[in-house]
Amino acid sequence: MVIGLLGLGTIGSGIYEHLQKRGDIKVKRILELKRHPGFEQLETSDFNEILNDPEIDTVIELIGGMEPAHTFTVQALKAGKNVVTANKLMLSHHMEELLGLARDMGVHYRYDASVGGSIPFLYNLMRHRTADTLTALSGIVNGTTNLILDIMQTDGRDFDDVLKQAQAEGYAEANPAADIDGIDAQCKIAIASAVAYQKYVRPEDVLTEGIRHISGRDIINFKRRGAGYVCRLIAQSQVVGQGVVTCYVEPTLVAPTATEAAVKLNNNTISVTGEYFGVHTFQGQGAGKDPTAFAVELGLRDILDGISPRVNPIPEGYAKVDNALAGHPYYLRTTAPVDIEAERIGDDAYITAPMSVQAMHELAKTLRETDPDLFFAGIQD
Amino acid sequence: MVIGLLGLGTIGSGIYEHLQKRGDIKVKRILELKRHPGFEQLETSDFNEILNDPEIDTVIELIGGMEPAHTFTVQALKAGKNVVTANKLMLSHHMEELLGLARDMGVHYRYDASVGGSIPFLYNLMRHRTADTLTALSGIVNGTTNLILDIMQTDGRDFDDVLKQAQAEGYAEANPAADIDGIDAQCKIAIASAVAYQKYVRPEDVLTEGIRHISGRDIINFKRRGAGYVCRLIAQSQVVGQGVVTCYVEPTLVAPTATEAAVKLNNNTISVTGEYFGVHTFQGQGAGKDPTAFAVELGLRDILDGISPRVNPIPEGYAKVDNALAGHPYYLRTTAPVDIEAERIGDDAYITAPMSVQAMHELAKTLRETDPDLFFAGIQD
Repeated sequence: MVIGLLGLGTIGSGIYEHLQKRGDIKVKRILELKRHPGFEQLETSDFNEILNDPEIDTVIELIGGMEPAHTFTVQALKAGKNVVTANKLMLSHHMEELLGLARDMGVHYRYDASVGGSIPFLYNLMRHRTADTLTALSGIVNGTTNLILDIMQTDGRDFDDVLKQAQAEGYAEANPAADIDGIDAQCKIAIASAVAYQKYVRPEDVLTEGIRHISGRDIINFKRRGAGYVCRLIAQSQVVGQGVVTCYVEPTLVAPTATEAAVKLNNNTISVTGEYFGVHTFQGQGAGKDPTAFAVELGLRDILDGISPRVNPIPEGYAKVDNALAGHPYYLRTTAPVDIEAERIGDDAYITAPMSVQAMHELAKTLRETDPDLFFAGIQD
Repeated sequence: MVIGLLGLGTIGSGIYEHLQKRGDIKVKRILELKRHPGFEQLETSDFNEILNDPEIDTVIELIGGMEPAHTFTVQALKAGKNVVTANKLMLSHHMEELLGLARDMGVHYRYDASVGGSIPFLYNLMRHRTADTLTALSGIVNGTTNLILDIMQTDGRDFDDVLKQAQAEGYAEANPAADIDGIDAQCKIAIASAVAYQKYVRPEDVLTEGIRHISGRDIINFKRRGAGYVCRLIAQSQVVGQGVVTCYVEPTLVAPTATEAAVKLNNNTISVTGEYFGVHTFQGQGAGKDPTAFAVELGLRDILDGISPRVNPIPEGYAKVDNALAGHPYYLRTTAPVDIEAERIGDDAYITAPMSVQAMHELAKTLRETDPDLFFAGIQD
C-alpha cells in the first residue's frame, strides 16, 4: 500500500508517525501548501502529483471542509484509488455521490474516523447490520461541547468563560460555531443513520440546536429538579416507519445516574439499538491526534485485509425525516411570553408538557424573535 | 453454509429461529438427547451423523460445560468443519489446543459469543490489535452478579433474598456457583486477555473472588464513605512487562459517578486500553436468548465474509500472571483479628492501606479459617 496524504496538520502528522513506526505502509507524497522541516522531499502543493502517480493506490484526505476536499476525493476515486477520510462535513453532504462512485470504481472509501474519532462505531454498525435490523441511534458525538457542559456543570461556571478556556487549551476552535451550534453533531448523526438504516439522511433535514445559549442560571435550574439533571448535547435518530426516521440534535437533560452523565470532559458515547441484540453502547475519545490517527490506520488495515463485503450494500435513496413523530417534555428558559402547556419552575423557566421535537424547534425559532437568548433542552426519562 | 447445531436449549432455539427467518443459512442436523415437537426430522442423538456428513461445513456448539463439548469440538475441527461457540468454560481451558487446531486445519473457530454475549468485544479486540498495542482490560462481564449487586444496592436487600428472586426469575441458575463465585468472569477475562495480549492466560492463574459473602451490612458501610461507593464484580488484566500481566476478578467499589456504577441490572460493560486510542468501552446485554443468538450469527456471517486474517495471528505461549504487581486499598469486613495497616470504619469493617492484589487474596484465604463469612472488595480511585 502506497499513500498520498492530503494535509500534514495534527491528524496528518499523527498518522504519518504511526505509519513510520509500523513500516509496512509507505507515505509517498504529502499535499501541503507550506513546507514542514524534514518533509521537503515528500511535500507538494500540486494534487496532480498524487493523482497521476500510479504507484499511489490510496489517498488519505485530512484537509477538512468542503473544497477542495470534495473535488480531490472525486478525482481520486475516479482515478481508481482508495480514499480514507475523517471529513464529516464534506462526507455528510456528498455521501450518495461518493459511496456510489467508490462502488462503481471498485475501490474502498473508508470514513470510519468521521464519526466518534477512534471509537469503532460505523464499522460495528456495518457488521451488526449483517445479523440484525438496526432501529435507533443516540449519543454524545461532539467532544468540545461535552467538555464545556461537563465543566459548567461541575464547576458552576458560565458558558463564555468555559468556552474561552477550552479555546485557550486547544479543545475548542477559534471559530467554535461548528461545534457549539451542533453542526458537527448534525453531520455525524446523518452519516451514522445512513449506515445504520441504509437510507441517506440529508444534514439539512436534521433539526439541530446547539449549546450557544446555555447559561449558569440554567445549570442551577437543572440541579433544582428532583435528583437534579445533567445536560448533554445528544444526537439521535430512530426508524419510525418504512423509510421514515426521526433525526435531531439538541441539548438533553438526563438523570445523574444515566450513562450519558458519566461521560466526562471531551469523551464521546454512542448507542445503537437492534431488534435482537438490544442496545450496544460504545465509549471513548472522539477526537485528538493519536485516537483519530488510530481510526484512519484501522481504515487502511481494513483495506489491506479486504473487508469490502462489509461496506456493501450501500444505502439506497433518502429517508424521510419527520420530527413530528418524536416527542418528550422540554426545559425552556425564555423571557418571551409562553402560551403552551408548561409548568413554571422559576424566573422565565418552564418544564413543558410532552411535545413533538418539530414543534419545540419551531416554537424556539418564533420566540427567539423576541428573546434571542432563549435556551431549551429535551428531557429524557 | 450448512449447519450442524449442538444443543437446542434457549440459545440454540434462538439461533435456529434467527436463521430460519433469514433463509440463507441452513440448519441440517441438531444434536439433542431428547426430541422437541416439530424438530423430529432434524434431531439426532448421535454426533457422528453431523461429523460424518460432508454437506455440514459448520458446527455451532451450544452444549456448554467441558465434556462432551471439548471432544466434539476437536472432532469437528479435525474433520475440517468451522466451529462457532459460546462456551467460555471449555474454551478458556483448551484455548491453545483449539486455536492451534483450527489454524492447522485451515478452518474458522469463532468464539465471539463467549465473552460479553452480544457485545462485539472480542472481535473489536482482534481488529484494534491490527493498528495499536493493547495494554489493559477491565469490565463487568457477568450479568447475574451485576443484577444481584445492583438490586442489593438499590433496594437495600440482603444477598440470599436477592439471589432467590434472581433464580425464580431465570436470571440465576439453580446452581449459581459459576456466576457468584466469579468462575464465569475468570474464564472470560482469561479468553479476552489472550486475544488482547497474544499470550494465553490460564484460568487457574486468575485470582478470583466472587460475591457469595457480601451482606446488606457491607452495602450500608459502602454508603457511609464520602459520596458513597457502588459495588460491582470487576474482572481486569493489564500488561506490566514483557509477557507479564496482572489478571484478577474481585468485588470492586467505584464512585457513584463511575461508568461501572451506571451499568444496571444484568448488563455488561468492558473496556480496553490501547497506547494510541486511549480507552474504549463497550456496553450491552451480556446474555439472553436473542443477544447471544445474534452474536453466534455474527460469527457465521464473519465466516461467510471470510474474515480469517483478523483471527490470525493466534497467541503464542503463556503469559506469566503476577498479581503482586497490582495494588490498591481494600474494604475488608471480618470478625477475624486483622494485623495489617488499616483504618477501622465500623464494627469488623476496615479500609486497608494500598496493598497488592496477591497479598489481599492470600490474606482473605488465611483469615477465612477463622471467619468463613469474610468479605472484601478492591477500591478503585
